[in-house]
Amino acid sequence: MSATAALDAFIASHMAQSTAELARLCAQPSISATGEGMAACADLVAGLLAARGFDVELLPTSGYPVLVAEARGRSARTLLFYNHYDVQPPEPLELWDSPPFEPTVRAGALYARGAIDDKGNLLCRLAALDAVRALHGGAYPCNIKFVIEGEEETGSTGLEPFVAAHKQRLAADACIWEFGGVDHLGNPNLFLGLRGICYVGLSVRSLTQDVHSGLGGSIFPNAAWRLTWALNSLKDSMERILIPGFYDAVQAPSARDLELLAHIPDPAQSYRERYGVTEFLRGVTGGVALERQASFEPTCTICGLNSGYQGAGSKTVLPAEASAKVDFRLVPNQTPADILQKLRSHLDAQGFADVLVEDLGSEPPARTDPDHPFVQMAADTARVVYGREPVLVPMSGGSGPNHAFIEHLKVPIVTCGAGYPGSQAHAPNEHVRLDMLQQGIRHSAHLLQRFADA
Amino acid sequence: MSATAALDAFIASHMAQSTAELARLCAQPSISATGEGMAACADLVAGLLAARGFDVELLPTSGYPVLVAEARGRSARTLLFYNHYDVQPPEPLELWDSPPFEPTVRAGALYARGAIDDKGNLLCRLAALDAVRALHGGAYPCNIKFVIEGEEETGSTGLEPFVAAHKQRLAADACIWEFGGVDHLGNPNLFLGLRGICYVGLSVRSLTQDVHSGLGGSIFPNAAWRLTWALNSLKDSMERILIPGFYDAVQAPSARDLELLAHIPDPAQSYRERYGVTEFLRGVTGGVALERQASFEPTCTICGLNSGYQGAGSKTVLPAEASAKVDFRLVPNQTPADILQKLRSHLDAQGFADVLVEDLGSEPPARTDPDHPFVQMAADTARVVYGREPVLVPMSGGSGPNHAFIEHLKVPIVTCGAGYPGSQAHAPNEHVRLDMLQQGIRHSAHLLQRFADA
Repeated sequence: MSATAALDAFIASHMAQSTAELARLCAQPSISATGEGMAACADLVAGLLAARGFDVELLPTSGYPVLVAEARGRSARTLLFYNHYDVQPPEPLELWDSPPFEPTVRAGALYARGAIDDKGNLLCRLAALDAVRALHGGAYPCNIKFVIEGEEETGSTGLEPFVAAHKQRLAADACIWEFGGVDHLGNPNLFLGLRGICYVGLSVRSLTQDVHSGLGGSIFPNAAWRLTWALNSLKDSMERILIPGFYDAVQAPSARDLELLAHIPDPAQSYRERYGVTEFLRGVTGGVALERQASFEPTCTICGLNSGYQGAGSKTVLPAEASAKVDFRLVPNQTPADILQKLRSHLDAQGFADVLVEDLGSEPPARTDPDHPFVQMAADTARVVYGREPVLVPMSGGSGPNHAFIEHLKVPIVTCGAGYPGSQAHAPNEHVRLDMLQQGIRHSAHLLQRFADA
Repeated sequence: MSATAALDAFIASHMAQSTAELARLCAQPSISATGEGMAACADLVAGLLAARGFDVELLPTSGYPVLVAEARGRSARTLLFYNHYDVQPPEPLELWDSPPFEPTVRAGALYARGAIDDKGNLLCRLAALDAVRALHGGAYPCNIKFVIEGEEETGSTGLEPFVAAHKQRLAADACIWEFGGVDHLGNPNLFLGLRGICYVGLSVRSLTQDVHSGLGGSIFPNAAWRLTWALNSLKDSMERILIPGFYDAVQAPSARDLELLAHIPDPAQSYRERYGVTEFLRGVTGGVALERQASFEPTCTICGLNSGYQGAGSKTVLPAEASAKVDFRLVPNQTPADILQKLRSHLDAQGFADVLVEDLGSEPPARTDPDHPFVQMAADTARVVYGREPVLVPMSGGSGPNHAFIEHLKVPIVTCGAGYPGSQAHAPNEHVRLDMLQQGIRHSAHLLQRFADA
């Protein structure tokens, strides 16, 4: 039996244990936005790695601790896994078909908050470790490190300084990122870059208390109107972001990037069906134009609005307070610090000094060279595992703290995981398909084995 | 002893009974928004009027029944009282110092939901009836009618058709409105008009479900942005309402109105202290300009905003749905139906056909001629009762169903009641000051006596 066949056989015969271990992980809430269950989840994950022979330590950051785990292996090469133990808040609860922290298997999938993001992907690593160790008589074929943080869903605020401060300890030759999987056609996708993010809370207080709208409507400042006008000043309905200098640092995609974009299967029809999109923004209809807009252009997205009365029927109240959550996605070479400063200056210049800006988490954009040998290795193993041609995605629309690793550890980063476009990450009924979980475990194991051999 | 002195003596010697009767009324919940206690409260009020010699009937409407009561008197003239037996919901309960439906007297005031709005004011009428009847040997000096509705706090939806359908039965020479009292200086205020209202829910759905903002931000329509831009198209930051034709029907205040406004004590400093207003809208600083803007100009007020994530920290979600509550206050001769139609046309013309408009309640504006003899009568009696110069307020900033009475019954309407600016109507710790209750009873009684004599 070849090494890869042995890995696959081990993985297949342990899927019940893997599913049960994932259910245990998902039953433990770990909501970084609210703090619920964070310490207990970190302990749970630490135990799972310690049981696999890792030296595990929970190291403090400015926020939730980072779990660092290390195991020595036969070769001198070191593979680093980046994952996170926190999850998104489960709300709105009423849209879940089963409770978010009561993992439930139905129709070949495990449903729970975190089932894919990121406990399902973390499980891929754990189960891959078991398979690889079994193949090597209980040893690991190379050095393996884990960085498992607790603030990925709230912007990884403490991670960049943490990585910078632990460069030696975290040193590695390559890094496998926290997510991955297949696109709507079932092709494995390898994401090589992430947009940055600058997530802000905007808030206004116009009065010391709410007031009857019949009294105040004509004469008192209304926090909800102030917020509406301030937001409107940020982006027009043609999707042009109006903050002066916002686009200054934006780098256009290279010829190689455009070549890679042209190989990405067009997701337009899939998006139409999945999300009910009738028209994409700025008139794009699909193909390279859609992919380019989705990943190589920055955004300004309202994630939430909150003011005054939101119940049934009417309440005639003039709100004293209003707030919004706004998410800017950034592309190379924009930086969150620069955008934050330009946002503040813009609001002041537009007469919105009363609109407070709170930095709720930011990360710079970063990317890996699509022609790095580790990318080739990840693509080759994906081709074997999935039996389909892998798709190299030069930039993802999403964000994450890859900049910390690329900048401070100089590692190439590829993605690998159990996701598919219907996984409902961040949404009600998040789930992992068990067939995709098995593929994610296989890809993790094959890539680890191949990396150790190289 | 003069007639008025006899009335005053009777009222003073019956304050304990009056307070006890008000406590009985307030102990009975009657929350039209939820239905709690509505039927029991209507029965309680009916009993109080029947005990005073009224023929009482509860007549059906599209919503809660209207209580109509009639008593014959010596003169042929008929005075109509408009009141309501419903109250606002008591929430937030934790901000009450005593339970909202356990009336409590402390520091010279009775605390309860409804203590002023409108059970305190209704008690003024009941206690005044007793005083007047005692003066007249058990008879009433004129015909008296009551219309006491059960939906004032939810927009009086059924009242206009009810009044239109019962014109003969409700016919009267003059009407005393459901509220009244003194301003921040203790001057009795007589409100002679009410702005109309057109309260709408605006809602947008841009996708069939929320989506990760990293995926959708550049390419999917965002309901929160659609709503923001739609709202922004309604009013600019200079407070100009941008709906074409919105101001067409607006009647400027007359020279007489402006003369009356000039006699209203400037509330600017009181507003600054009570609500923390630092600058009033459109640069007004107080006086006639402030009063004019507050009552003779229409508004467009956002009462609530709701979309996406509103919890602590960040959630990177692109919201599929967003909604707002918007309250237009209307002045003569605007009509809710016209404004609603212009709003729809405007949104369509601005490219916001995706923004749905729901009518959540509307009432036209209406006013009484400040030089009507009945207004003079109310002012003269107020001057005697309060010992201060009454203030004629040609229009109130608030709204109510006075249009139904002015339009269908052709009656002049004045206000009279036990309120003061700190009464906390619609808020926790609603109360009526017992000294103000006595004044409200006295004014009701003096005005009734004077009306009968005329």
